[in-house]
Amino acid sequence: MGKGGKSHEVDGEEKNMAAWLLGVNNLKIQPFKLPPLGPHDVRARMKAVGICGSDVHYLKTLRCADFIVKEPMVIGHECAGVIEEVGSKVKTLVPGDRVALEPGISCRHCDLCREGRYNLCPEMKFFATPPVHGSLANQVVHPADLCFKLPENVSLEEGAMCEPLSVGVHACRRANIGPETNVLVMGAGPIGLVTMLAARAFGAPRIVIADVDDHRLSVAKSLGADEIVRVSTNIKDVADEVVQIHKAMGAGVDVSFDCAGFNKTMSTALSATRPGGKVCLVGMGHSEMTIPLTPAAAREVDVIGIFRYKNTWPLCLEFLRSGKIDVKPLITHRFGFSQKEVEEAFETSARGGNAIKVMFNL
Amino acid sequence: MGKGGKSHEVDGEEKNMAAWLLGVNNLKIQPFKLPPLGPHDVRARMKAVGICGSDVHYLKTLRCADFIVKEPMVIGHECAGVIEEVGSKVKTLVPGDRVALEPGISCRHCDLCREGRYNLCPEMKFFATPPVHGSLANQVVHPADLCFKLPENVSLEEGAMCEPLSVGVHACRRANIGPETNVLVMGAGPIGLVTMLAARAFGAPRIVIADVDDHRLSVAKSLGADEIVRVSTNIKDVADEVVQIHKAMGAGVDVSFDCAGFNKTMSTALSATRPGGKVCLVGMGHSEMTIPLTPAAAREVDVIGIFRYKNTWPLCLEFLRSGKIDVKPLITHRFGFSQKEVEEAFETSARGGNAIKVMFNL
Amino acid sequence: MGKGGKSHEVDGEEKNMAAWLLGVNNLKIQPFKLPPLGPHDVRARMKAVGICGSDVHYLKTLRCADFIVKEPMVIGHECAGVIEEVGSKVKTLVPGDRVALEPGISCRHCDLCREGRYNLCPEMKFFATPPVHGSLANQVVHPADLCFKLPENVSLEEGAMCEPLSVGVHACRRANIGPETNVLVMGAGPIGLVTMLAARAFGAPRIVIADVDDHRLSVAKSLGADEIVRVSTNIKDVADEVVQIHKAMGAGVDVSFDCAGFNKTMSTALSATRPGGKVCLVGMGHSEMTIPLTPAAAREVDVIGIFRYKNTWPLCLEFLRSGKIDVKPLITHRFGFSQKEVEEAFETSARGGNAIKVMFNL
Amino acid sequence: MGKGGKSHEVDGEEKNMAAWLLGVNNLKIQPFKLPPLGPHDVRARMKAVGICGSDVHYLKTLRCADFIVKEPMVIGHECAGVIEEVGSKVKTLVPGDRVALEPGISCRHCDLCREGRYNLCPEMKFFATPPVHGSLANQVVHPADLCFKLPENVSLEEGAMCEPLSVGVHACRRANIGPETNVLVMGAGPIGLVTMLAARAFGAPRIVIADVDDHRLSVAKSLGADEIVRVSTNIKDVADEVVQIHKAMGAGVDVSFDCAGFNKTMSTALSATRPGGKVCLVGMGHSEMTIPLTPAAAREVDVIGIFRYKNTWPLCLEFLRSGKIDVKPLITHRFGFSQKEVEEAFETSARGGNAIKVMFNL
Repeated sequence: MGKGGKSHEVDGEEKNMAAWLLGVNNLKIQPFKLPPLGPHDVRARMKAVGICGSDVHYLKTLRCADFIVKEPMVIGHECAGVIEEVGSKVKTLVPGDRVALEPGISCRHCDLCREGRYNLCPEMKFFATPPVHGSLANQVVHPADLCFKLPENVSLEEGAMCEPLSVGVHACRRANIGPETNVLVMGAGPIGLVTMLAARAFGAPRIVIADVDDHRLSVAKSLGADEIVRVSTNIKDVADEVVQIHKAMGAGVDVSFDCAGFNKTMSTALSATRPGGKVCLVGMGHSEMTIPLTPAAAREVDVIGIFRYKNTWPLCLEFLRSGKIDVKPLITHRFGFSQKEVEEAFETSARGGNAIKVMFNL
Repeated sequence: MGKGGKSHEVDGEEKNMAAWLLGVNNLKIQPFKLPPLGPHDVRARMKAVGICGSDVHYLKTLRCADFIVKEPMVIGHECAGVIEEVGSKVKTLVPGDRVALEPGISCRHCDLCREGRYNLCPEMKFFATPPVHGSLANQVVHPADLCFKLPENVSLEEGAMCEPLSVGVHACRRANIGPETNVLVMGAGPIGLVTMLAARAFGAPRIVIADVDDHRLSVAKSLGADEIVRVSTNIKDVADEVVQIHKAMGAGVDVSFDCAGFNKTMSTALSATRPGGKVCLVGMGHSEMTIPLTPAAAREVDVIGIFRYKNTWPLCLEFLRSGKIDVKPLITHRFGFSQKEVEEAFETSARGGNAIKVMFNL
Repeated sequence: MGKGGKSHEVDGEEKNMAAWLLGVNNLKIQPFKLPPLGPHDVRARMKAVGICGSDVHYLKTLRCADFIVKEPMVIGHECAGVIEEVGSKVKTLVPGDRVALEPGISCRHCDLCREGRYNLCPEMKFFATPPVHGSLANQVVHPADLCFKLPENVSLEEGAMCEPLSVGVHACRRANIGPETNVLVMGAGPIGLVTMLAARAFGAPRIVIADVDDHRLSVAKSLGADEIVRVSTNIKDVADEVVQIHKAMGAGVDVSFDCAGFNKTMSTALSATRPGGKVCLVGMGHSEMTIPLTPAAAREVDVIGIFRYKNTWPLCLEFLRSGKIDVKPLITHRFGFSQKEVEEAFETSARGGNAIKVMFNL
Repeated sequence: MGKGGKSHEVDGEEKNMAAWLLGVNNLKIQPFKLPPLGPHDVRARMKAVGICGSDVHYLKTLRCADFIVKEPMVIGHECAGVIEEVGSKVKTLVPGDRVALEPGISCRHCDLCREGRYNLCPEMKFFATPPVHGSLANQVVHPADLCFKLPENVSLEEGAMCEPLSVGVHACRRANIGPETNVLVMGAGPIGLVTMLAARAFGAPRIVIADVDDHRLSVAKSLGADEIVRVSTNIKDVADEVVQIHKAMGAGVDVSFDCAGFNKTMSTALSATRPGGKVCLVGMGHSEMTIPLTPAAAREVDVIGIFRYKNTWPLCLEFLRSGKIDVKPLITHRFGFSQKEVEEAFETSARGGNAIKVMFNL
């Protein structure tokens, strides 16, 4: 059955196991009964599942933003796997296909779905957002149109990386990044890095990235940032740091991505962006913010919000296939799917440090 | 010579007089030498000039936003008049034409001008924005392409109202108001009212306006607001007031205009707007703001900034001509152009109260 | 059972009857077995069904564009009715609700559906587009989210008019009509008229409509066209007629709608539109066209195509509710649902003449 | 004085020489008196001037599109050079700066200029578009804001190539090319090639190019086309060739550029493009076109027109600087600026054959 005890046979029949979040810091591998396979669904065996910051947040606090875990919930939502069975009306996939899974199932009937902004659907069912179960499991059942076949040269781990990458891709689309857009990225954590990679793939000619941490900045530089700027957490430093950022850019900042979401980073982003530019708020550090919004608005700097993503998997896979984006350097740690390794993996991710993306191989 | 001693003859030749801001609360009618008439310029006799909040701000503090009055400056920028002379290359206007004047002269050469966002031109020369002189004067010299001929049924006073109305029009354009956009307006002062009128003219099917003042709200209702909501200045009331606003709208809020620009109004606007909607920041109450930006951004509520306007006069004049907008009820007080009346007029405007727009008839 | 023998009881149970297209000029009222009611479906009793040009086309030729009627098919797709039964998951409607029906059911899974352009869905199932049955029947089963509750002051007949009106609304949306858009409409038939009404409701300040027929033009004038221009079918007249159109507009033509779709009308539209404007091709007279496309493209006049509509019902109903659009004058003839009346109604519609919209009251 | 007798000294003062179009096939190097240097102008010494198809057209027929040469006119408009003198208000350039020149001077005052669509300005003065003189001369006087400083690693010849490249860049901007846009290019002549290069630089993941000529196709392949398709001039072949194109693309065609502009190429482009896609008409082969427009419009395939370009030089220079585009392989022939060489150069360009871009080195 391979490494990590990743499934169990009972009386000749395999039992589907999953990582259940049972309480604060309490994650247990336990059986997980799959729902019935609908005509438009597939059943897929998970092969690569990444740990997201929100997963860690749920483990540590049982909540994330407004969502609260009230019942035991299977964790995990960054995933790729292999099709095992397809529903009666599925024509696009066959067993054996390697796929990356988009984790959110929208209602397909509301105004927002019909207008194509399905990421905002109020009836969204999203892996590991309570009360919906996630995908750190041997198998899951999922709609076929949310399973995207991997190109031959894209691995299952890279497929799982489509999820975090999608955040960057969606941010770049909403901010309309192209070959004329000089980009500032505030924050060189995992989300800052995928946003930077996406901005490059959308053609951004010049990207400056700022962070408080030298190691993160060196990673960003190695992944392709044109210039890095070391900043502080002190709000008093904004003016000076904006000067440094402008110097590093050597041109106006057309779009800033705040991938941290704190008063300091947002203030810097607002102040550094040129008249008529945009600031895209990606990170979610502070909920309430104290920021110089009025002077920015008076330069017609718009603030663009994002929530997850929509229709991003095909583009992510094209970026990976063509080599315009290489996500492999982001995967810093790998674990199998045993009780012990699951615990270790989450600890590794929670600790931060050199870890960017922690990945399970099931 | 007409009412108000609006010009002076010396030895048979008229002397051009203007209202000079000489210091805090010190406004004097004094001679104003006109610049030479360029080939693309016209010389126009001012007939109607309105007082803007920024004019009052300069009078009381010698500053507005980042602009500081360091030298004596002619005040005024909301104006209409009659062409007296045209430059050698002017083909579109002749003496006697009644025109409304767009007050800002952009450089026409920078990137922002060439891209059509000339309101953001860093070299902008704008009436009564230091160190540029304004138009509360008998005559001014101005580029012909910034002087827009009034339709026959539009008065000079209405022509002068194109300036404040342009703020509302530009806000509606940037926020993409149309027949499917339910609109919330925070603040029923002059800017809130012109924004409301503009939103209606752009087709907004339902407009709710909120303010702390009952009189302002009753004016707003009489000018066409579908519903009015009385709000407080207490930030703790936001949640309750959002409920009231939603009830008054009877539908989602697609776009909110914050025409006040305070923590309270912006917080309400952000919270009241539907997922995927927009908040347009028009008023400039607070410079630094403490607001729940992150939850709004996470519903993809974008914040749109505006600065003045561009290419708005033809549309304003069309709205006035067709009767889609009636600005006459906004003109609550009228004064002639004598030293005493100028002082009274500015006091009236500064006092607020029932005054919406205070207008000079020169 | 009311007028027109619109349903039949057999052994105490009502039999659902429908107008079946059996062959060229062969339309028979016969029993129509309803499909089972799905959890997201409703069963609605049809009360008002209009005849569309495509219905007549099918009756006369068994085809329309690329669609061919190969099997007997129930005709009709412009309809409104009353809910009789709702599926288990329907929360938005209850029996007795008066609704207008959007006739096309998209797959909700393909790329185009997910991007919000569901009108282009290749799997679309559309009333009375072979091999899908239509709605000229006592009852139909339809998805609840395609049934839109009528405001109290909107009649069932007006509800049925949402379908043709949607064509005009979709065209205006795609051409971005607003209060700054001077509009030319080529063709004053039913589609030209609804496009004109929609353009007005979107705020078009000035609308000129051109046709070869004086009666149609007089109807257009009575429905609100600012100016009418009588044109010929002779391609040699284009240049002269463009001069007439420009004179009637008294300004540049920003957007032209070709609601006829012939070489002559499209040539006129392309030539009359200002640099940077748009021509929207709505009518489908000629399939292959001989037109001066290059000179138009060299003035950056774009040609916008439309296919049916998407997300238009709520806006149509708002236009009808608010009185911004009055479709009642378009309903020129009414018939009951008997074999004889069905035949007469289609003959009336086919004859044209004074008939604009022919409506069944079931 | 260097090669080609490119200037003449008379009494110690240099005489400015230019290539004058005097009649059909009659091009003579003669003195060209420069206009006075305005405060916003520069005087530049031309170093590289390319020959455009329109130049050849003027030489052979004295006309191009609607423009007719009625008086002797200096030819040439694709150019780069070195600043010799700057006007009193010029701050951005100094003598010695190497610059590429954007050839069209718009009026800066009309509605289209103010809206940022200055390429459509009706008062445009454009190098070598009658009656305006061109730039195949030792020196020209031009507005400073239309002279763009070359990055160090961009040669003067490459600078001159910004002009044809701008056509491709403008087309890609109007058609909104990005990393999700599969592109078909009809025609592998000079304009087809620059459009292909621009589309690649805008991120197009897959580009198929079609032409009737094997040599051109092989050039296109060597310059980066993913696939090439050999087509005929026979309109009957459209259906088969669309199949070939789809096969070569291996995906839907999102945007087609018709860089030839004939019935055949446009018919193919319209038929090959996916529902909801765009066809951009770049070439101008036929003025009147016979094309299957209606079926394309009924799939919401829009036709986008382009005229020249606007604000493209900075982006072109960035593409050249970064190496995202290499235009050097397009320069196939070089000539000096003597009477004999001018004649030879135009003959070479007119002959076509292996010539893509013929360049003068002055």
